[in-house]
Amino acid sequence: MDDHTTLYGIQEARVSTAAPGSIDATALAHAQTHLQRSTISHYHLPATDQTVHWGYFSKHLTPLVTVLSGDVITIETVTHHAYDDYERMIKGDPGMERIYAWDQTRKGVQRRGAGPIDASLFGRGAGEGLGVHICTGPVAIQGAEPGDILAVRILDVQPRPCANPTYQGKSFGSNAAAWWGFQYHDLLEEPKPREVITIYEMDTTGEHDWARALYNFRWMPQTDPGGVVHPIIDYPGVPVDHSKVQEQWGVLKNVRIPIRPHFGTMGVAPAEADLVDSIPPSYTGGNIDNWRIGKGTTMYYPVAVPSALFSAGDPHASQGDAELCGTAIECSLTGVFQLILHKQATLKGTPLESLTYPLLETPTEFLVHGFSFPNYLADLGANAQSDIYTKSSLGLAMRDTFRKMRHFLMTTQGLSEDEAISLMSVAVDFGVTQVVDGNWGIHAIVQKSLFTGGES
Amino acid sequence: MDDHTTLYGIQEARVSTAAPGSIDATALAHAQTHLQRSTISHYHLPATDQTVHWGYFSKHLTPLVTVLSGDVITIETVTHHAYDDYERMIKGDPGMERIYAWDQTRKGVQRRGAGPIDASLFGRGAGEGLGVHICTGPVAIQGAEPGDILAVRILDVQPRPCANPTYQGKSFGSNAAAWWGFQYHDLLEEPKPREVITIYEMDTTGEHDWARALYNFRWMPQTDPGGVVHPIIDYPGVPVDHSKVQEQWGVLKNVRIPIRPHFGTMGVAPAEADLVDSIPPSYTGGNIDNWRIGKGTTMYYPVAVPSALFSAGDPHASQGDAELCGTAIECSLTGVFQLILHKQATLKGTPLESLTYPLLETPTEFLVHGFSFPNYLADLGANAQSDIYTKSSLGLAMRDTFRKMRHFLMTTQGLSEDEAISLMSVAVDFGVTQVVDGNWGIHAIVQKSLFTGGES
Repeated sequence: MDDHTTLYGIQEARVSTAAPGSIDATALAHAQTHLQRSTISHYHLPATDQTVHWGYFSKHLTPLVTVLSGDVITIETVTHHAYDDYERMIKGDPGMERIYAWDQTRKGVQRRGAGPIDASLFGRGAGEGLGVHICTGPVAIQGAEPGDILAVRILDVQPRPCANPTYQGKSFGSNAAAWWGFQYHDLLEEPKPREVITIYEMDTTGEHDWARALYNFRWMPQTDPGGVVHPIIDYPGVPVDHSKVQEQWGVLKNVRIPIRPHFGTMGVAPAEADLVDSIPPSYTGGNIDNWRIGKGTTMYYPVAVPSALFSAGDPHASQGDAELCGTAIECSLTGVFQLILHKQATLKGTPLESLTYPLLETPTEFLVHGFSFPNYLADLGANAQSDIYTKSSLGLAMRDTFRKMRHFLMTTQGLSEDEAISLMSVAVDFGVTQVVDGNWGIHAIVQKSLFTGGES
Repeated sequence: MDDHTTLYGIQEARVSTAAPGSIDATALAHAQTHLQRSTISHYHLPATDQTVHWGYFSKHLTPLVTVLSGDVITIETVTHHAYDDYERMIKGDPGMERIYAWDQTRKGVQRRGAGPIDASLFGRGAGEGLGVHICTGPVAIQGAEPGDILAVRILDVQPRPCANPTYQGKSFGSNAAAWWGFQYHDLLEEPKPREVITIYEMDTTGEHDWARALYNFRWMPQTDPGGVVHPIIDYPGVPVDHSKVQEQWGVLKNVRIPIRPHFGTMGVAPAEADLVDSIPPSYTGGNIDNWRIGKGTTMYYPVAVPSALFSAGDPHASQGDAELCGTAIECSLTGVFQLILHKQATLKGTPLESLTYPLLETPTEFLVHGFSFPNYLADLGANAQSDIYTKSSLGLAMRDTFRKMRHFLMTTQGLSEDEAISLMSVAVDFGVTQVVDGNWGIHAIVQKSLFTGGES
């Protein structure tokens, strides 16, 4: 093993038969065989103020590292809700402290969102919070070109342990019932409307596979270090002054939330615009927010720009289908990914031929992801990045998902249209991915076992 | 055991400790203890032309039998798609033959749907096919009154074996990709639009737990025995003349569909109208079309009329969430149900207090069912039964499901609104139940295990 450290603190290790740490050695060995490479490199990409882009994707970002197809990269991803509880999610963690640093003179990460850098639109701050997710990357894949498919195998996912010694062995996450949630204008109790943050605790020792709620508080206007008042959660990473909110402890007493660690936002850079808000998902992936995108699964993305430019962020400890109130348990996670490039010329006759949408493969299922607008940047024209927030519906997303699943069944399983439609009605499950990300999502799940049977 | 036969061929048996046939003896013993009754009755309700109502619910139907709370009833339910393949789904089965009987002078069951009996609206036939499901019942529950809750425990579900000796040991079902399906105006291949029937085969010997497709055919205009031509599938039970269609064998070759036997339509009579189209589901249940309503689960319905008037029909061998093309694998099934009445006065302080919607309990989950309009007959006024087909959307159904799940969590788990909303976002899954039943449906699933944990 030959380790060295590069710019941004990225570490590279060349590994042969055995894999270090938490990486699945079998998977690596398999990859080596499959790719006919005697060694593959294993990179480590830490999350720091220098390695994240906050709230946007861009084809113009300089890659932090260039990998070869088959290489493995450990990527630290951090939640953009960490400042909801500084003590539990930032304090003592050098990477988090550098990312969230913000005083009167400077911010660790200036731009947060795809809006104007001078905040001339709403005055909320640089980037205007038009896009919120802290994404680590991008990672360039050598030789990737538009028309290729990038497969991202998630070999491992681990919570980022709390660095504050007071909370050793724990990890924490925040759930914000926010103004962009489905519930916001449909509340029963006063005050209406309101935003509520709930802080959850997870275990990092392996003892428990569930989260529990600790306390919640109603969002109260917060003044950021630059003097801007945030009456609602309108800009990411605003420090929450806990002297201004009322913590209610003992909420969701005795309720255990099963852990479903996954990456809410993961994908490649779109071609259609220079700076793209990280919130609406699209054909290149991004903020899909499907809790099944976790360990042991593979995402396939159509490459849209040279080098693909892969990034990951928006880590979640758990989420329900719909992500109803606007967020999941937003909790920093570290993932181990293997990036495999499928060149367009090699796709003919394979299941990946003509794939134009993000596809998830789990050990037992295939999932297609439909959106109200499959490629909203192209579909909605010049004002796409604002119009997407007013034009989405579940009906449109259902339409797109139907079409994608039909395409998937016809192209990868060789079914006729009539066969595909009948099968979809009797054996494919459609679920609500999310109703909170501008471009609303529905997914369709087909079991692989359908296709493994012979004639009886 | 004391058996006797009553009107309509209904058999009654009084059972004490042991349960006959396929009924779960443990469940019955439990029920006896729970209900403090030394014996409970077990009825058998066959499906014949005299025991079914076709295409509608009605509070004015005369009950076939009156049961006491806790009694068990075996109900034969039959599919309304059996005439798609007479040889496999009707021939040799006396009950099916009597139900489907139709010649120039008479029909076994005249009314099919809630439309005018003289077919003066569209000329399709008596009842006009405004409602299509063959429902067996109704069953009166002694002492049931509006405000009570009827629990329906599904103790067993079995396919109805094919009675044609040529196909011994098999059962068959039909899937219609029909004009009311989500795909109908969005097809790729010619001819457009088209309706396609696919015939599926299941095994009744217990050897296989999957279905396979046999053949499909495109619907061609069919002339019924009364001389009415049906260019599309616009009236239920029209005999399909197979000399007029082209069977394509070998479709979905090597594809195995996991069996999920369930009742698409099951519920109690609504109070709001005299004759109610069986297609749109509502607060009293009906055509919910959730494939999880199978063996080992319990449905809870708000009672709307005296005696509740429970019926079951629309049996499915399997269905996917969404029921995309308009139908499932429509296949006759026989169910064993235990009917338990919860009187309004006993509900206070229980999880069933203030339940105003159909709730499903499985061994591991609770599911609430939301619709575009929770009680469309009341919500949409005088023209509700036609307007419901033009006003539904998944967005409205999502709204209703959110409200019902919030209500469920607040009333049955004692959560505050803020707790319920956070929990919904991080641990409750929303899925598309169906987009083809007029009143579109979304369901929300919450795992029981969330609530079984103690403090850590």
